[in-house]
Amino acid sequence: MASLPHHPILAQSFAVIDQEMGDHDLPPAEYAVLRRVIHSTADFDFAQLLRFSPDAIAQGLAALTAKTPIVVDVGMVRQGVQAMVQRTFDNPLLAAIDLVAAPRPGCTRSETGLLRAWQQYPEAIFVIGNAPTALVALCDRIATSEVKPALVIGVPVGFIGVIAAKQALAQTPVPQIRVDGRKGGSSVAAAILNALLVLAWEAQS
Amino acid sequence: MASLPHHPILAQSFAVIDQEMGDHDLPPAEYAVLRRVIHSTADFDFAQLLRFSPDAIAQGLAALTAKTPIVVDVGMVRQGVQAMVQRTFDNPLLAAIDLVAAPRPGCTRSETGLLRAWQQYPEAIFVIGNAPTALVALCDRIATSEVKPALVIGVPVGFIGVIAAKQALAQTPVPQIRVDGRKGGSSVAAAILNALLVLAWEAQS
Repeated sequence: MASLPHHPILAQSFAVIDQEMGDHDLPPAEYAVLRRVIHSTADFDFAQLLRFSPDAIAQGLAALTAKTPIVVDVGMVRQGVQAMVQRTFDNPLLAAIDLVAAPRPGCTRSETGLLRAWQQYPEAIFVIGNAPTALVALCDRIATSEVKPALVIGVPVGFIGVIAAKQALAQTPVPQIRVDGRKGGSSVAAAILNALLVLAWEAQS
Repeated sequence: MASLPHHPILAQSFAVIDQEMGDHDLPPAEYAVLRRVIHSTADFDFAQLLRFSPDAIAQGLAALTAKTPIVVDVGMVRQGVQAMVQRTFDNPLLAAIDLVAAPRPGCTRSETGLLRAWQQYPEAIFVIGNAPTALVALCDRIATSEVKPALVIGVPVGFIGVIAAKQALAQTPVPQIRVDGRKGGSSVAAAILNALLVLAWEAQS
């Protein structure tokens, strides 16, 4: 296995974050995810907001290694992860918003596209950085389906419907990584998936 | 001029931000930029961190309306602005990192690509959400050139070299929008440019 390129500035940044975080009781893999989120936002609030279900890391790494498809909500998230995906397991990578030309009546385009992706790949890794409507629709389907996603990264950002969407995800039994509260977004979603890709790649090297 | 599509959730989100911001003394156009940044991050810290040179809004809107090329540092920023660019003035849009296959020795790839873009379009709008090295290199060129960028949006995020890069930008006489401190990133950079595109489009409608 080829090792991933590590820019020296990334290592220096991680060292600053380690120092400022100080002592914590996170498992190493969860801390690696948190550290990459802080690196991409310079916002230590995420240390209080990031939530992992007990099976999230193990299920996520296994799914990535098995080349499970990755479904993201919007193009910015895809853009933020595609280089790392290509360097590691080259999982199929779909942006929900690109799967449909127009939304179904009463729905957003990312919701419509996400449900189309779910019909095709119900066991995918779903990464939602922006669209709370898409996350709610996915949670509704999870509740009534025997097929479960391998992992849901649920980190939409914003002021309307975002907290409710994350609470809906928390109620499901699916392996999940969330950011509670209003924060999140494309950069956060990409940082979480990129951290998991690095962990999965290093675990098998 | 066609009016831009406004999703009702966007208007509701802006109303929540208006309410929580309360009274402020920002000029309306600067507030419109700040509000879009807060919308994309759910982080009100930006109310204390966002800085505008006195000519930034006027120069930025004039340049956008004149279809001035837009040079961004990385693909995530391009992805975050391209829909709004296409709906409005359809400015040429380049990502510096895509302009070179490999960095010059001792430089980052985004720095090398940004300098190539600057040679071609020194009067472009430059949008830097990630690469402090690229922002420093641009500031060095601004200091020794008679041709100035129309606007620099300097909002790299991170822990190494970021504050120094923003301070270097602050020392230049170029029209500029900055986020002081460590915060910033692709979502912030895209939000600032998208807000300016909306303002420019509405000003001429």
